[in-house]
Amino acid sequence: MKILITGAAGFLGQRLALRLLERGELMDANGNRQPITELVLLDVAHSSHSGDSRVRVETGDIADRCLLERVITVETAAIFHLAAIVSGQAEADFDLGMRINLDASRLLLDVCRERDHKPRVLFTSSVAVYGGTLPPVVRDDTALHPQSSYGTQKAMAELLLCDYTRRGFVDGRVLRLPTITVRPGRPNAAASSFVSGIVREPLSGQRSVCPVDARTPLWLLSPERAIESLIAGCELDRELLGTWPVVNLPGLSVSVAEMVEELRRIAGNDVADRIDWQIDSRIEQIVGSWPGSWETSRGERLGLAPDQDFAAIIGAFINSRNSSDPVSGGY
Amino acid sequence: MKILITGAAGFLGQRLALRLLERGELMDANGNRQPITELVLLDVAHSSHSGDSRVRVETGDIADRCLLERVITVETAAIFHLAAIVSGQAEADFDLGMRINLDASRLLLDVCRERDHKPRVLFTSSVAVYGGTLPPVVRDDTALHPQSSYGTQKAMAELLLCDYTRRGFVDGRVLRLPTITVRPGRPNAAASSFVSGIVREPLSGQRSVCPVDARTPLWLLSPERAIESLIAGCELDRELLGTWPVVNLPGLSVSVAEMVEELRRIAGNDVADRIDWQIDSRIEQIVGSWPGSWETSRGERLGLAPDQDFAAIIGAFINSRNSSDPVSGGY
Ligand SMILES: NC(=O)c1ccc[n+]([C@@H]2O[C@H](COP(=O)([O-])OP(=O)(O)OC[C@H]3O[C@@H](n4cnc5c(N)ncnc54)[C@H](O)[C@@H]3O)[C@@H](O)[C@H]2O)c1
Ligand SMILES: NC(=O)c1ccc[n+]([C@@H]2O[C@H](COP(=O)([O-])OP(=O)(O)OC[C@H]3O[C@@H](n4cnc5c(N)ncnc54)[C@H](O)[C@@H]3O)[C@@H](O)[C@H]2O)c1
Repeated sequence: MKILITGAAGFLGQRLALRLLERGELMDANGNRQPITELVLLDVAHSSHSGDSRVRVETGDIADRCLLERVITVETAAIFHLAAIVSGQAEADFDLGMRINLDASRLLLDVCRERDHKPRVLFTSSVAVYGGTLPPVVRDDTALHPQSSYGTQKAMAELLLCDYTRRGFVDGRVLRLPTITVRPGRPNAAASSFVSGIVREPLSGQRSVCPVDARTPLWLLSPERAIESLIAGCELDRELLGTWPVVNLPGLSVSVAEMVEELRRIAGNDVADRIDWQIDSRIEQIVGSWPGSWETSRGERLGLAPDQDFAAIIGAFINSRNSSDPVSGGY
Repeated sequence: MKILITGAAGFLGQRLALRLLERGELMDANGNRQPITELVLLDVAHSSHSGDSRVRVETGDIADRCLLERVITVETAAIFHLAAIVSGQAEADFDLGMRINLDASRLLLDVCRERDHKPRVLFTSSVAVYGGTLPPVVRDDTALHPQSSYGTQKAMAELLLCDYTRRGFVDGRVLRLPTITVRPGRPNAAASSFVSGIVREPLSGQRSVCPVDARTPLWLLSPERAIESLIAGCELDRELLGTWPVVNLPGLSVSVAEMVEELRRIAGNDVADRIDWQIDSRIEQIVGSWPGSWETSRGERLGLAPDQDFAAIIGAFINSRNSSDPVSGGY
């Protein structure tokens, strides 16, 4: 079985690639386990790879049709489409966000459509599709009123993927990811970058700025559980998805204050006191428009699970830092 | 004040143009009545015009950037963007629907953005944005799970217009129109074409096919009320629209059986018996996915009103046929 990952050099892409290689197989659309014979890693940044003979690295822009036509063939059974311009950058550079988050996603779907073999396409959407006046608990059938260009572009790409699926051009699945934390490495241009920062930096002796009010509710999932969910989402029986193949991933609803309290409990006052509270209204506006809690019975029925609690999320991060995990150092 | 109508040769476009010329003025963004000095009528079909010196006819494709750059200038204070590929045709020709309903709408918004004067853009969306498993009464905050490419393209264009508005590129407003009926003239490629057909054809002595079950609920508005709503929507105070400038227009929830009963009561058995019941599963699937009833308190609070009852809708149609209304004969 041939698999493509776009955004393969990114935070989740790197981890997904490692996990797929380790697993060695993926269920096909008929529910049969098939060995992974080729894993194409596509990213505009270079994907470091382990020298595994199954891996093919392609460095280039997913907005480039020729490149997509080369990497998507009738043998491509599954595509994990992760490449994206993250929230903060898509807000700062509107045209870039539109070109990658919307136009390149459409191009990828169009190349699949030309191939006419209906590959599975797993698309990663986000809490940022929600916004505006929200009910206390967001449901699968709550309307999308995104208050950022990133959220708008993700919501539009969701609609596109659903229509391409309905028409039989692809077998699409959308997972709406909570904020994935704790992310190793350095801060990035996502508006949610601080969520990992306020745990990661203090734990390594550095100060970190929290740009939002401590009461801000967040919706969180660990990288480990996110990767398991991406694979499970790709393997889900098409029939179970019904007419709307979009699933809100189960996660934990935690306020920033609760995160810091847990960090204090696990790592002590010295660590927790390395956070500087300094409101950034631009970030607060984006993050504050996201739901802090959502109803996920659908995702749970489909067998997708959240982390046990926030302590488990911090614990997993501390473990991965201490292990020889080749990607935990960031990039 | 300079105004542009796209799709000006269409059913609603023709009527809107006449009504604006008759009115002679439109409120500007500050709530001051301004005389209409130029009305640009853009359509790929030729817009017949009354010889009024305020009218400028432009025949061409809204997917043509040069044309849009010519017709949208910094003097353009309001744009009624009605040009569209209707539901049946967008389902039959996917690429054409994408090109006009999505890409050309985006192009229009981009030309406005370049002009940098934030014109009001009124966009006509549809019940077709809803679909899938719906609550009995659809609300403003019910999620959009469109089950047609037309509905998908309208939903995507809504999201785009909202983001362009949030960013300050345009002052956008979206009205979700019920099925507008009774439409004079001949059947068209909209999946809802029969809704007018089963009243219009029998009244003029011809047989007409109803392709859906008599129990199918519909959400209806007369052309007269639709035009008043388009103008009111454009004149609405920006502040009243809040962070999500999309309004479900108030309409009447009527089943096909109730429509036929009312026709029978008003025009007699001979007329009502001219309907042939012949299910077309393709049309039933599209129309059956639309909501038959929606909660419209928001639209009502904004001063938008439905017709009194279905008898009033039939009455208005009979009157317009008998009058000298220059567009009632269709085109
Ligand atoms: N991490 C989260 O908290 C989170 C939450 C919700 C959704 N998501 C989504 O999950 C996906 C992966 O997220 P991530 O955290 O790994 O993001 P990331 O920014 O670490 O990775 C994205 C990758 O996409 C690549 N990319 C960007 N533009 C490209 C282009 N034009 N061509 C090819 N590659 C390009 C980048 O180089 C990067 O390696 C994204 O779609 C993101 O929107 C992530
Ligand atoms: N009539 C309804 O029941 C109804 C219901 C919901 C929404 N709407 C929406 O209201 C708007 C007007 O509807 P209508 O009933 O007048 O439709 P219509 O089909 O009568 O008019 C649409 C017009 O757009 C023009 N057009 C199509 N492609 C074009 C292009 N590439 N360039 C320029 N012009 C082009 C057509 O020539 C036509 O004159 C549409 O956006 C429609 O989707 C209508």
